[in-house]
Amino acid sequence: MDTLVHNVWIITMDNSEKRIPFHGYLSILDGRIHDIDSGKPDQSLIDEAKEVIDGGGKWLMPGLVNTHGHLGSSLLRGHGDDLKLVTWLKTVMWPNEAKFDHDLVQTAAELAMMEMISSGTTTFLDMYHLAMPELAQMVQEKGLRAVLCRGMIAFGTESEQDEKIREAVSLADSYHNAADGRIRVMMSPHAPYTCPPDFYLKAAEQAMNHQLMLHTHISESPGEVDEHLRKYGMRPVEHMHRLGLLNDEVLLAHAVHLTDEELSMLKETNTAVSHNPMSNLKLGSGIARVPEMNRQGIRVSLGTDSTASNNNLDLFEEMRFAALIHKGVNHNPESTDAYSILRMATVDGASILGYSQTGTIRQGSDADFILINPDQPHLTPWTPERVVSHLVYAAKGSDVTDVWIRGRRQLENGFFLEFDRERILHKSNELVKYFE
Amino acid sequence: MDTLVHNVWIITMDNSEKRIPFHGYLSILDGRIHDIDSGKPDQSLIDEAKEVIDGGGKWLMPGLVNTHGHLGSSLLRGHGDDLKLVTWLKTVMWPNEAKFDHDLVQTAAELAMMEMISSGTTTFLDMYHLAMPELAQMVQEKGLRAVLCRGMIAFGTESEQDEKIREAVSLADSYHNAADGRIRVMMSPHAPYTCPPDFYLKAAEQAMNHQLMLHTHISESPGEVDEHLRKYGMRPVEHMHRLGLLNDEVLLAHAVHLTDEELSMLKETNTAVSHNPMSNLKLGSGIARVPEMNRQGIRVSLGTDSTASNNNLDLFEEMRFAALIHKGVNHNPESTDAYSILRMATVDGASILGYSQTGTIRQGSDADFILINPDQPHLTPWTPERVVSHLVYAAKGSDVTDVWIRGRRQLENGFFLEFDRERILHKSNELVKYFE
Repeated sequence: MDTLVHNVWIITMDNSEKRIPFHGYLSILDGRIHDIDSGKPDQSLIDEAKEVIDGGGKWLMPGLVNTHGHLGSSLLRGHGDDLKLVTWLKTVMWPNEAKFDHDLVQTAAELAMMEMISSGTTTFLDMYHLAMPELAQMVQEKGLRAVLCRGMIAFGTESEQDEKIREAVSLADSYHNAADGRIRVMMSPHAPYTCPPDFYLKAAEQAMNHQLMLHTHISESPGEVDEHLRKYGMRPVEHMHRLGLLNDEVLLAHAVHLTDEELSMLKETNTAVSHNPMSNLKLGSGIARVPEMNRQGIRVSLGTDSTASNNNLDLFEEMRFAALIHKGVNHNPESTDAYSILRMATVDGASILGYSQTGTIRQGSDADFILINPDQPHLTPWTPERVVSHLVYAAKGSDVTDVWIRGRRQLENGFFLEFDRERILHKSNELVKYFE
Repeated sequence: MDTLVHNVWIITMDNSEKRIPFHGYLSILDGRIHDIDSGKPDQSLIDEAKEVIDGGGKWLMPGLVNTHGHLGSSLLRGHGDDLKLVTWLKTVMWPNEAKFDHDLVQTAAELAMMEMISSGTTTFLDMYHLAMPELAQMVQEKGLRAVLCRGMIAFGTESEQDEKIREAVSLADSYHNAADGRIRVMMSPHAPYTCPPDFYLKAAEQAMNHQLMLHTHISESPGEVDEHLRKYGMRPVEHMHRLGLLNDEVLLAHAVHLTDEELSMLKETNTAVSHNPMSNLKLGSGIARVPEMNRQGIRVSLGTDSTASNNNLDLFEEMRFAALIHKGVNHNPESTDAYSILRMATVDGASILGYSQTGTIRQGSDADFILINPDQPHLTPWTPERVVSHLVYAAKGSDVTDVWIRGRRQLENGFFLEFDRERILHKSNELVKYFE
């Protein structure tokens, strides 16, 4: 046994019938969960383990899964807020991103990974257009788990477009299913308003050839849907459906403005959604029809989007927004429930990204889990029956004290084991001094 | 000089023209801010001070102001969620509250005060029906700042109603403007659906006689508005207006379902609002028309409501919800802006509660301020220009390291100086084991 963690309250997310955590222990062998049981471990288990950790009564749960983001733009956090989308893109995003180099993007990615790890995220998806092989290398070396997408905007010439697809395929050739399966690669045309139908078809063909999933933004704001309707006579999701682009290997980010018919198309094709409530609110995009998606059994996960439009990567906050806004907008507190939201952020998110070995705590799955310190005013009082509620309605990313990904400890009592915290924070602050 | 805090970035909230913090220092004398300036303090100031604190480049801002809550029900956090209002009241709130004794309510209040202090709140309003004199005593002794309201539900006989009013008046006699003005008392009929018009008039008369403000719930959910219309032929705010109950000494909690006419009544009478976005979402009540209130110049502050319907007391989260939901619902990122939201949670909240000496950092005002540690991934990168954005869109209550109220330090690098943390958390957990 490599590691034994005992004296913890375990939330498995593996069985909807068992929503109440039990007091017990788990052990890790070769990156996987080996033993898991209630009560105290036998002395023989303790003797066998190379490392024994007393969890001190903390909560142990699967690491969180963030199914949509853009790490490369993390240094734009707070650089332009409260602006209309077009103003924001033209005055904040594009002028700055045009000047980003690989070094800056790598620092931004490191910063984002630190923020995610320290707030309990063990699996993330990144869609970006710069320095993706460098990111893949970092993810591999540091022992992280990530879905990497070379985001493609198809505004250029055909040869420029082809070059982007070649880059995406090359990323997949090198890294898809690499690092013990921790890294996955998806084909990622940016959005219907930046990529013509032809380009989507090309991307989808390559996805099929290389057995990759497809990830794209869709129907985020009312304006883009209207424009699509004018241009093609169809709404974006409907259009993708007609092109044969919807299936269970497709993940749509945002999916805010969908008609009943479009929801049916998602259900029928088993297409998945990344719900990004905070970003959708902040940019004034709107509120996705998540309770309706849940009712229909459409697969929904949670994503933060980037810090340029959120402005943080704490999935506990994202869960809270997802849990609360739909109740308020629909005037119905039964619109969502805490356990379903926690599923979106763990087991459902993992499954949607194509990972079968993470998102739950069970024997044989990868040891991706986090510890949460309940000994705090805002998580008090607690009983086992209240833990799921507290995780969704009261906990913060800062309550996470320890993080393991595939058995490798990333955070130990709040300290990063794989990142040079001081250097990255300092460099980030230096790099932004001359932003426009 | 009692205390000198230097090497801090100061956000004064005192001048809308100066939204960018400056690097400087402040000193405290007899509970008030004595010196405040940019740059480094002179050696003479340092020599004069009894205590010199190097802020280490942290952000210093006014303590936050929570204008609506119920501390006594804090132990119900997470005990019943995702329920319709009536089910929640009948199965969770009422059966448990009926069994609350003074000891339990005091523990609940201590827990809530710890949560608020540790997340940067230096002024709170509490409306509750039990153990208010005991709470007043605690607030006085511990050096806190609070508005205390003996909440009154007028379901009983006339003599029971009168007894409640007598209790409220007695609380005011003993504590209004007590403790160097830290404690204020308001008259607080619970809500139009629990108090008949007669009772409101009686309460208002006592408020006038004793120079107290009036605080009440109003138009929180669609159902209560409909019922009021059926019963009285008028909507609640309209009804209060006709009864002559709206004026600039009145604070309405929630005020979610208001017509254009009712908004005009608030504007015309300068009546103030406590916006409680998270509780309103969680109970499925709806979303108050805050951008419209702001446009009209209606005074708006922020409140958490209780942990039974929020489920936390972190005003940073409340700010985030207030800042984001209106943008999303109105499809307009310009609906709210970070600085206005920060005003609601500081200077506007203080002014609405009747405090002129807190809510801003300026010479002569009470030394109610907090320190925030920006040296964290989720607050990186930062420049002075980004601080207001980070406070509203990225910061957490857990970023608060130090808290002073009227010059008395309540939190020192995360440690409570006036509360027995271990005892209160332990007792809270013990008390709830047998809740229904």
